[in-house]
Amino acid sequence: MLITALDEMQRWSDTARSASKIIGIVPTMGYLHDGHRSLIETAARECDAVVTTIFVNPLQFGAGEDYERYPRNLERDVAIARDAGTTVIFAPSRQAMYPDGYTTTIDVGPIAQRFEGTHRPGHFRGVATVVAKLFNLIKPHVAYFGQKDYQQTLVIARLISDLNFDITLRVLPTVRESDGLAMSSRNVYLSPTERADATVLYRALQAALEAIARGERERLHVEAHMRSVIESVPTAQIDYVAAARAETLDQPDVFVPGEKIVLLLAVRIGSTRLIDNALTTIPYDSSST
Amino acid sequence: MLITALDEMQRWSDTARSASKIIGIVPTMGYLHDGHRSLIETAARECDAVVTTIFVNPLQFGAGEDYERYPRNLERDVAIARDAGTTVIFAPSRQAMYPDGYTTTIDVGPIAQRFEGTHRPGHFRGVATVVAKLFNLIKPHVAYFGQKDYQQTLVIARLISDLNFDITLRVLPTVRESDGLAMSSRNVYLSPTERADATVLYRALQAALEAIARGERERLHVEAHMRSVIESVPTAQIDYVAAARAETLDQPDVFVPGEKIVLLLAVRIGSTRLIDNALTTIPYDSSST
Repeated sequence: MLITALDEMQRWSDTARSASKIIGIVPTMGYLHDGHRSLIETAARECDAVVTTIFVNPLQFGAGEDYERYPRNLERDVAIARDAGTTVIFAPSRQAMYPDGYTTTIDVGPIAQRFEGTHRPGHFRGVATVVAKLFNLIKPHVAYFGQKDYQQTLVIARLISDLNFDITLRVLPTVRESDGLAMSSRNVYLSPTERADATVLYRALQAALEAIARGERERLHVEAHMRSVIESVPTAQIDYVAAARAETLDQPDVFVPGEKIVLLLAVRIGSTRLIDNALTTIPYDSSST
Repeated sequence: MLITALDEMQRWSDTARSASKIIGIVPTMGYLHDGHRSLIETAARECDAVVTTIFVNPLQFGAGEDYERYPRNLERDVAIARDAGTTVIFAPSRQAMYPDGYTTTIDVGPIAQRFEGTHRPGHFRGVATVVAKLFNLIKPHVAYFGQKDYQQTLVIARLISDLNFDITLRVLPTVRESDGLAMSSRNVYLSPTERADATVLYRALQAALEAIARGERERLHVEAHMRSVIESVPTAQIDYVAAARAETLDQPDVFVPGEKIVLLLAVRIGSTRLIDNALTTIPYDSSST
């Protein structure tokens, strides 16, 4: 079922809730790929009803970013989401979501201010705001997000916890192409040669993960491994590479054994900005350092 | 029933909602007076279940304001709220509402920035944030607020509309003492002589209302009527007096017939800051100007 009207969405949710159905939400900006499909399929397995939302949220794009040219194809999205098992596709208009006179924003604080927050000021304010709106429109019990937008998942966790949304957050692993490139709607921007170069993000993460597995604990060294891989590709321009504590994004000089960390990077391949990340735990036993 | 735990509150709300009960919320900072009683009684008439929340919200107090000395008496509040017909009293702790690591805030934009917003920076950010939290904890269908905090009701209306809370806002008239003083938990701060002086707020509003009824349409003249009444009382210090469009708080130089306007004032009587307001419509027929 395709729903575009906000009040119809709310009525549907009320009916589902009063029938004691567990509602899962999969918020997306559309142009669905296998990463989205994985979220929808998991939600369909775990919930009684799944709402896949398709909305290119202007509030999370900065000036000069790709809001206008962001790829859109509702018909294709509807087919993919249905095939993956969604119950409802909710695709509201920009005017319905942000009518004249709209002024409210949500700021989740410091977790949103580094990395993506530094390079895309206001981005996470837009994300937190639209997600809160979708939560109120759909009243889900479980929300599904991909790990590919790792910092975003921390922002959503903060939003849910701080504003007491009665919602369980499920973060599912990044889905990758066979050569390691993380699935992203923005991959469509890449020319064939850029598409080949774009594997550098995955290769950089692998290099850092190997160094950590070999015993590397110094943050700057871990980051240097990523940086040197990326700098080997002339079309690649680094926005940031970072190793940080996975839960707080704090960046100590030296990580300690048992610490869960995240490797984060944002790289421009030509004019296309891509992000990726990897989670790992600093090993206790490091014979090779 | 008295509930203090957040998860117990959410479970209660889920049960009430799945039993198709219409839930009303009356958010308060406690130290209940007849204004609160009126809200609770109306909610009890209009809803199947009423949750009266009692929480002195630190986030809406500025540095140097009266958070610490704000009057508190939970036992008395529980008795009053029960007598007025509440189903649940929800009185969470500060630590439960703002645990360590809490960082999220909601900003409703320009409507929160003038008048109270100018004199109490961050106040409405604190209000909007705690009200959103209470909405998510209690999942009400209807929210009851007093007109006494007029600008606050506009902030809540903006919050509900912009974030798509599926909640109806009911604003009930200010309840007054026999001499016109608006009921407020802060009235307890007043000494006997200050208590007598405090009627100046009501008298100022009446003077402006009479001028408008006589045909006054110039904003500065309307405001001057209020100002001169207040300045006749030596203990009274004006924070602001304002006439504004009721819905937008815009302040044109001249109001037009049929326009709904609000008179707003904030006045310190000694060290006690009081606010009051009155709504009126600019008359079409003005024979006396």
